[in-house]
Amino acid sequence: MSSSKELIGFLSQAHPDLDVLTDATDRAGYETGARYGVGTAAAVVRPAAREQVQAVVAAAQRFGVRLVVQGANTGLVGASTPDAGGEQIVLSTARLKGAIAVDPLNQSVTVGAGVLLSELNTRLAQDGLFFPVDLGADPTIGGMIAANTGGARLLKYGDVRQNLLGVEAVLAEPAGELLDLNRALRKNNVGFDFKQLFVGTGGAFGVVTAATLRVYPLPAQTATALLVPTGVAELEALLLALNAELGDFLSSCEGISREAAQAVVRHLDDVEDPFAEMEGADYAMLVELSSTMPSRAGGLDLEALLMDFLERHYGTLIGNAVVGKPEALWRLRHSITESIRNEGKIIALDLSVPRSRFPAFRAEARALIAARYPWLRIYDFGHLGDGGVHLNMVWPLQDAPAYDEAVASEVRAELYRLTVERFDGSFSAEHGIGPYNERFYRDFTADAVLGHVGAMQSRLDPRRTLSRLWLGKGE
Amino acid sequence: MSSSKELIGFLSQAHPDLDVLTDATDRAGYETGARYGVGTAAAVVRPAAREQVQAVVAAAQRFGVRLVVQGANTGLVGASTPDAGGEQIVLSTARLKGAIAVDPLNQSVTVGAGVLLSELNTRLAQDGLFFPVDLGADPTIGGMIAANTGGARLLKYGDVRQNLLGVEAVLAEPAGELLDLNRALRKNNVGFDFKQLFVGTGGAFGVVTAATLRVYPLPAQTATALLVPTGVAELEALLLALNAELGDFLSSCEGISREAAQAVVRHLDDVEDPFAEMEGADYAMLVELSSTMPSRAGGLDLEALLMDFLERHYGTLIGNAVVGKPEALWRLRHSITESIRNEGKIIALDLSVPRSRFPAFRAEARALIAARYPWLRIYDFGHLGDGGVHLNMVWPLQDAPAYDEAVASEVRAELYRLTVERFDGSFSAEHGIGPYNERFYRDFTADAVLGHVGAMQSRLDPRRTLSRLWLGKGE
Repeated sequence: MSSSKELIGFLSQAHPDLDVLTDATDRAGYETGARYGVGTAAAVVRPAAREQVQAVVAAAQRFGVRLVVQGANTGLVGASTPDAGGEQIVLSTARLKGAIAVDPLNQSVTVGAGVLLSELNTRLAQDGLFFPVDLGADPTIGGMIAANTGGARLLKYGDVRQNLLGVEAVLAEPAGELLDLNRALRKNNVGFDFKQLFVGTGGAFGVVTAATLRVYPLPAQTATALLVPTGVAELEALLLALNAELGDFLSSCEGISREAAQAVVRHLDDVEDPFAEMEGADYAMLVELSSTMPSRAGGLDLEALLMDFLERHYGTLIGNAVVGKPEALWRLRHSITESIRNEGKIIALDLSVPRSRFPAFRAEARALIAARYPWLRIYDFGHLGDGGVHLNMVWPLQDAPAYDEAVASEVRAELYRLTVERFDGSFSAEHGIGPYNERFYRDFTADAVLGHVGAMQSRLDPRRTLSRLWLGKGE
Repeated sequence: MSSSKELIGFLSQAHPDLDVLTDATDRAGYETGARYGVGTAAAVVRPAAREQVQAVVAAAQRFGVRLVVQGANTGLVGASTPDAGGEQIVLSTARLKGAIAVDPLNQSVTVGAGVLLSELNTRLAQDGLFFPVDLGADPTIGGMIAANTGGARLLKYGDVRQNLLGVEAVLAEPAGELLDLNRALRKNNVGFDFKQLFVGTGGAFGVVTAATLRVYPLPAQTATALLVPTGVAELEALLLALNAELGDFLSSCEGISREAAQAVVRHLDDVEDPFAEMEGADYAMLVELSSTMPSRAGGLDLEALLMDFLERHYGTLIGNAVVGKPEALWRLRHSITESIRNEGKIIALDLSVPRSRFPAFRAEARALIAARYPWLRIYDFGHLGDGGVHLNMVWPLQDAPAYDEAVASEVRAELYRLTVERFDGSFSAEHGIGPYNERFYRDFTADAVLGHVGAMQSRLDPRRTLSRLWLGKGE
């Protein structure tokens, strides 16, 4: 009998209230990732309380079985699905909900790791609050910590790390011990900030069971515009002006390439092309201002401030502007991926560079692709305000060589090298590390860091119970 | 010959360009801390380049000599001064300046660890920018990272951790290796964020030689007011209203007790008592709004928004308000310590609690002191907006028992316990850990954390070369 079968037997007997799925049909939804990762699990266990997580971790450690912790399975690097071996066990945190404890005066909330972002925000809205890390998907809070998600409003609110006040986690060493670091403090400097080990590390150092997050008052007014700068120098000047003049309100500054916008225009009937009469320009900015202060006579009026800004820069920095239809503008931004899906195989890159180097990086990346892989179509977009670049490409189904995974891999590798080595950028800006990109982690991480982090992981998880991810040297 | 003498001999010969101070007069300024810590060093070495830091660390490791890294020596927990043994060597980073490389478009700056906060801000002002971590002292950037300083504008801008994009550090293992993590990225999720090891850890994991920081446009307008809420419930309601209505602009929300304010009034001739006609109230709020947007007709006017806020809440939440004299109001806040210095021996506590628990904590702490140590005078103030509490007391020179260090220690211990165990607070909110409070670190830190962090420190600094601080179990 395999170790995983033994573990399942033990858990079913010792913890009959634990939800254990072994049937292939029941497991299926947990075995395929949102973008990458397809595998087979021996079982899916779904603890509903921290004590059950402790029992599962302790038992998995004892039986030598590897767990794959999974939240809502929305991750994009294959980190939350099992490998093909059929011996790993998915530990789903989906039932780790508990009460959502809002502290309006402290502007914080304590929440179970299995609570969905949408569930959290529904509850927070009752107190006029929200958790502002804004994403296309609906992940669990535990998954957001494991990936340190950033999203489209990082500019104003920061990423998960910047909003994480405390965590509660189950450790592998001592086996199954509960570590309570779930304080709701904004200032707490008492040695190494241990909770950092759980942020952006894909669960490699512990299973987060609950967290305390910083929350914010819901905006009472917003103002949105799509701006097409007249050229590259104007794009840079516009970014500077936005920061200097409207920086207190700037909650989003997204970038959309001409090709990405036009793909959406082709795909959706009711979207207008912002580049229609703009010969030279090829990159647009979606700008969102927001404030907690309600608009009222004599008070703050974001629409008026935005219009004033546009008037001052129209014709010089700005060639075209579409103002005041937030749903339509955000729809343009959010429909890019679905608009290009039918054109072929997508190669999606989650990069970042210093904002000041973005135009040069973009030009070089496009030149590299055009020279070496001329059949690829580029549909780039991203979080312009924070340097995030989703350099997505399509390998077309027609008028192109047949899709070749090895060549696609080479495209990724070349662009990663360009990003990291020539532009001091990141090959994984906000999606984290998983089987999809783990080998690049080893290529691009300093040897001393690999050595030290590997030692840390070995001490915190001596039998590699907690994660598929290995952050040290070698395999 | 002692190891430190050998090391000094070696360094003087092998690195004649290294500034080595052995004379007692030259050393003196490096041997006494700003608040705690008096010792004797074998020498002070003052490297001017990263390569010299690498050489000093490698040699200290080889000769088995402990270094004490020191920036501007403004720390408040005794972490940057040597012990009494005369064998430790102070590694001063004061000459690690180099160029201050500002990237206005990326809103970041790369800076040597020895650059002073004031020097950095003078340079940044040329580009209309500033580094907003605001303190009474003028520390080096390296010292600010080692202590993860917070200060009076954390509410809007965060602490050093939240504004640290990259670091460059010299490691003890491999001995003297330079680790370059000095990227200027806002999104970079590639495994464990190794730079976190250097933040708030007093240099225990490496010597930071340079850093890249996020910077911000200088405010173009501010509005300041001292508000005296009519009572405790009103103080809480006022905090909520400030956040909800003026949250985008709220850069400071400091707390000043009646006793602290009145001590300043007694000490300085030209300061008025905000509590003069306020019988029931005993805690005031210094509120600062700021914006990068210049005030102009039809635009944003913070003074007007603040006046409107005050009018709506005057008489209900607010009992007294002093508006629009920023220098005088900040002088009241910043003169508390000097105003009480002559009354006796100061016992200074740097605590934090969740903001929602502050009034209850304050009441209990005051009751505890009144019951057990009735001769102590309480002059508390703090960073009300972020939960920071400087619960400072004076042990008077007259009409009190003679000062007794053991009793003062007991006072600290009792209040730390109250803060941490009863109010889920921190016993070191923003001053970090040093010899002054290291024993409490061990008392209040989970055993598993002590074990793991000790193992990490042992691996990164196997001979304990880098710091007096030991973050593991035992001594």
